[in-house]
Amino acid sequence: MEIAKPYLLFLGDAPDALAAKTAAGVVDWRRDWCVGQLRLPGCKADVGLPETDVAEAVARGAKTLVIGVVNAGGVLPEHWLDQIVLALESGLDVASGLHGRLADTPRIAEAAKANGRLLHDVRHSREKFATGKGSKRPGLRLLTVGTDCSVGKKYAALALEAEMRARGLDADFRATGQTGVLIAGRGVAVDAVVADFISGAAEWLTPAADPAHWDVVEGQGSLFHPSFAGVTLGLLHGSQPDAFVVCHEPTRTTMRGVATPLPTIGQVIEATVASGRLTNPTIRCVGIAVNTAALDEAAARAELDRTVAAHGLPASDPVRFGVGPIVDRLVAEFS
Amino acid sequence: MEIAKPYLLFLGDAPDALAAKTAAGVVDWRRDWCVGQLRLPGCKADVGLPETDVAEAVARGAKTLVIGVVNAGGVLPEHWLDQIVLALESGLDVASGLHGRLADTPRIAEAAKANGRLLHDVRHSREKFATGKGSKRPGLRLLTVGTDCSVGKKYAALALEAEMRARGLDADFRATGQTGVLIAGRGVAVDAVVADFISGAAEWLTPAADPAHWDVVEGQGSLFHPSFAGVTLGLLHGSQPDAFVVCHEPTRTTMRGVATPLPTIGQVIEATVASGRLTNPTIRCVGIAVNTAALDEAAARAELDRTVAAHGLPASDPVRFGVGPIVDRLVAEFS
Repeated sequence: MEIAKPYLLFLGDAPDALAAKTAAGVVDWRRDWCVGQLRLPGCKADVGLPETDVAEAVARGAKTLVIGVVNAGGVLPEHWLDQIVLALESGLDVASGLHGRLADTPRIAEAAKANGRLLHDVRHSREKFATGKGSKRPGLRLLTVGTDCSVGKKYAALALEAEMRARGLDADFRATGQTGVLIAGRGVAVDAVVADFISGAAEWLTPAADPAHWDVVEGQGSLFHPSFAGVTLGLLHGSQPDAFVVCHEPTRTTMRGVATPLPTIGQVIEATVASGRLTNPTIRCVGIAVNTAALDEAAARAELDRTVAAHGLPASDPVRFGVGPIVDRLVAEFS
Repeated sequence: MEIAKPYLLFLGDAPDALAAKTAAGVVDWRRDWCVGQLRLPGCKADVGLPETDVAEAVARGAKTLVIGVVNAGGVLPEHWLDQIVLALESGLDVASGLHGRLADTPRIAEAAKANGRLLHDVRHSREKFATGKGSKRPGLRLLTVGTDCSVGKKYAALALEAEMRARGLDADFRATGQTGVLIAGRGVAVDAVVADFISGAAEWLTPAADPAHWDVVEGQGSLFHPSFAGVTLGLLHGSQPDAFVVCHEPTRTTMRGVATPLPTIGQVIEATVASGRLTNPTIRCVGIAVNTAALDEAAARAELDRTVAAHGLPASDPVRFGVGPIVDRLVAEFS
């Protein structure tokens, strides 16, 4: 799946900024790919792009309408259809991270067919994966792992890619979730793959590469999350990382959506090394990304100092302080 | 999914006994549910049931034609269709463990619809699973785990169910693979579930039960298999076993289908406890099932003696010597 760029970001009638966080993520990381935002009456989200209708977007070279908004239930509301169909009739492809498939809406399926356009449902890969092989491939790989879901694994991976590229390293973000795929324009939502093919999908996503090339792989779930640990383990085995970064939110006490207590960073490092060495015997932790959004700056710095001292590893908040110390360690370990 | 009994077992034109191993498994464990076998000209398999055509099977009360044979590629050959359609027209449901869906063959889909019959594709659950919750449920659960795939986890679970029932315990085999589902008449092929729902499917399969009731859960894959460990881990978390039995084939050196070396039994015990305690803090190993088919009887007994001595746990070959010692330990630990 390769989504054609540039994008027109569709925000629909998002009731708040959070509903459009997919669009916001695309703008944060790939602003150059976005010609504008398309909002319906009543839209409360604004990702800071020029207001652009379909005709104008086409004139500016847009290739894909990206549905950058979620709505309750994950289904496509009827009142979004006119603009989506207009986009298809105007020569744009459409990409969506919603649960339901675009083609399950007959008007969309017909318009795509009649106009020869592609529909990208990033939660539903069309790729036929093989089962994982487990054999070592050339190239270097970094995986972000977490003490929980939704602690900043995607953001950390994107920040690492940006910092590594800024230092001249050959690095590519590899998306494993729907928002990541829209940001990267390619990838696979591994949680939507059939269970037998999790590690195979991760191997497909991070193929043999130049020995100095880094895949910077977006992690999913947590080895300690009772709902999703199977996805996490398959992704770990398939991506066979040389290095990993643990992502953590220090104010959380239970895992997202369940009553299970949060593991410690140390437990996550230990479990990731224990499981990861099956496909990469030299796997090691190179840093800790701490999401300090809930702390003031002094508390955030104190938390990072404690984390560095406890684990002997660089720790930073990618949003607040960047990932420089982690990339320093990565470069020192792998050069 | 609940498959109506009794069964007529369809062996097609199986080129050898191995191709009909699904049917053989059903006969091994649920002979009472089988009214006969239906073989096409050239069939080289024979599972020892009376030769029975569709009309005769219906007369004897059969409710479902079970396709108990695989063919190259997992697709349904054209020359099987006449008998399958005849079964549907005669009032039988049809159940299949093949990769392709029965309803993808138009003649089958039409005959099922016209005659109001059910098509069971056991690799494709129709159930809508929730994500796993991870909270403790009443009832007792045993899971078979393995040093590898295809080491006898299903067979061990079925043997344990039989022995536990023979001793008056309230025990139910819970099938997690296509052959197991056909043997049990219900269950879910967890490797065919979408990755996000592996542990949720396992929770659905082993719901809250009487405190003295045992679910005896068929394991899948291995925590040390680089292709399938994600499935294994999700099944472990979702089934939250109180007890587990390690299944092992002592002559194997690499994991099935890949170059990864086999783990030791001790590594599997350690990793299963380490991961399993996330959803059941008191998880423990109660025995080792050794598949000694490749050894003569003296070597098999010596292997079992070594295994008992090395791990301080009962060890037996379920096929050759039964699972009595393992159930002894289970009863001693949980009474």
